[in-house]
Amino acid sequence: MTKIREINERELVSIITEIMESGLISNRSSPLVAAGKDDCAVLELNGSELLVASTDMLHSSTDFPAGMTPWQMGWMSVAVNLSDIAAMGARPIGVMAALGLPPDLELDNVKELVKGMKACAGIYGTQIIGGDIDRHDELTVVGSVLGSTDKAHLILRKGARIDDLVCVTGELGTAGAVLDALENDTNVDPGLIEKFYQPTPRIFEGMALARTGCVTSMMDISDGLAMSLHDLAAASGVGFVIKSEDIAIHENVRDMARDDDQLVEWSVYTGGDFELLFTLRPECIEKIGEVAKFTIIGKVTSDSITMQRNGRIEGIEARGFQQFGDNI
Amino acid sequence: MTKIREINERELVSIITEIMESGLISNRSSPLVAAGKDDCAVLELNGSELLVASTDMLHSSTDFPAGMTPWQMGWMSVAVNLSDIAAMGARPIGVMAALGLPPDLELDNVKELVKGMKACAGIYGTQIIGGDIDRHDELTVVGSVLGSTDKAHLILRKGARIDDLVCVTGELGTAGAVLDALENDTNVDPGLIEKFYQPTPRIFEGMALARTGCVTSMMDISDGLAMSLHDLAAASGVGFVIKSEDIAIHENVRDMARDDDQLVEWSVYTGGDFELLFTLRPECIEKIGEVAKFTIIGKVTSDSITMQRNGRIEGIEARGFQQFGDNI
Repeated sequence: MTKIREINERELVSIITEIMESGLISNRSSPLVAAGKDDCAVLELNGSELLVASTDMLHSSTDFPAGMTPWQMGWMSVAVNLSDIAAMGARPIGVMAALGLPPDLELDNVKELVKGMKACAGIYGTQIIGGDIDRHDELTVVGSVLGSTDKAHLILRKGARIDDLVCVTGELGTAGAVLDALENDTNVDPGLIEKFYQPTPRIFEGMALARTGCVTSMMDISDGLAMSLHDLAAASGVGFVIKSEDIAIHENVRDMARDDDQLVEWSVYTGGDFELLFTLRPECIEKIGEVAKFTIIGKVTSDSITMQRNGRIEGIEARGFQQFGDNI
Repeated sequence: MTKIREINERELVSIITEIMESGLISNRSSPLVAAGKDDCAVLELNGSELLVASTDMLHSSTDFPAGMTPWQMGWMSVAVNLSDIAAMGARPIGVMAALGLPPDLELDNVKELVKGMKACAGIYGTQIIGGDIDRHDELTVVGSVLGSTDKAHLILRKGARIDDLVCVTGELGTAGAVLDALENDTNVDPGLIEKFYQPTPRIFEGMALARTGCVTSMMDISDGLAMSLHDLAAASGVGFVIKSEDIAIHENVRDMARDDDQLVEWSVYTGGDFELLFTLRPECIEKIGEVAKFTIIGKVTSDSITMQRNGRIEGIEARGFQQFGDNI
């Protein structure tokens, strides 16, 4: 009898997805994009509007490190979901929150958590529209976010074409550096901790990029750049070559790294940076420069996922530090 | 410092709802019906279609009694959410599932759980469109269900008018009787246990009732008939008088009850029966008889919530056995 501990999460996702998909009859309520295939599920509504939806479970033992404030826990539980909405180029239209609360938790901390959720939703143009509360031994926060987009502006993981440019918003490696410091109890810039505990979902960037008509595929890199490149490659049927020195990394993260190997470990193989990975038609480069801040880190190839590093080419492994649960 | 254990769930819902609502500026992304006000949140989309959404957290220690199969756990986690969709008169269009899975759980049990979710979604015309999996010490299943309805057919808790008939689908008291038997380790009809473990969300009844144009208010009675009458009364600004002998109760539940007091305790003051409570224009009674099976249990009054029982009138208290967490 196989136990859950004996299989990895990706395998489990495949098993569940297969059960969900077997024997399904397509009808009006079938999603345009189904479970396990993208950052969000996508449903067709009347007219040209599409509904996108995502859910994420966070809980104390795996997602809320010791120094995180309740406000930041609330912020993060909304932010991780908004990041999935951003990855579709969609606009968030509502957040639901299911809270499992330990009896010994202080009410003031619950208020702070709820305020953090509200702040994150509010800044990105939406709000908490409903939820559920339950007593639970372990603080557990499940956010579900709904978004909408025009059919014409929906961006999927599928769609990258050979010679497209590979781009990433923001800076990578922050989560890796902070996790490393927390684990080894070493000093770390409080600004980096805040960046990790209070991530910026790229809602505005995602919407702006989608509207240019220049973006051919997109996803968030919550599972790390390497895993995400593999996911995007599989969905689009392409390969990638990226240049490690072109990855944008915060100066303080660079300073913290022992060597180049550690920097690559943090910026390529660690999850928790909620940035967008996307591919761009090369002819669009001038048009798109104004709508969002991002870095070009490589280009789309016909196959294999590799990295130029110190003048050499090396394969990028399909692994990441899976701080947060996988999306089905 | 107040701890969570020191306040009841309704108070906590009020506190959270107040934080969520303070300082909000109404805009396109504001819900038509907000957190804490109804069985579902309601969002306006383009055109005349409305989106309804609900989330519910279930977990081992409070929601999955010892004899429940993993398949039934899956079924129930979808059913409780569908019940909220039914209460709005809406059609379900997608279910998301966030699963917190203990490492020692057997994979076969997870498969069964997922099959139970899929079966329940499928029977009511929808499917699992996405989700998240996480390792968790306690088996925790959070379902989020989306539904849609025409603006013209949306039914809220608000809308009951004096002299409307008070109606309930199905039979009440089953959950109460089974919980009592499980708690006291007494014998109980396996058919009743199955009815409790595998509840029938009233999706088809809710949709059919909403389309008659005869239903003035509706909600599900997952928190028990008494709590639901109080909630409906508060939302509609009315009162109710019901007749205890008109409440439909399964024959085997009647047989199990020690006395009339226990029967009232099970059928009025216990949650867990996922039936719909609704109010009906009296002139509609003939028109509506064909669309769904239900019982008329009383009528709407100007104020106070009372019950005729053995020829006497008694007040109905605002209490219920809250087996499942409150909706915010």
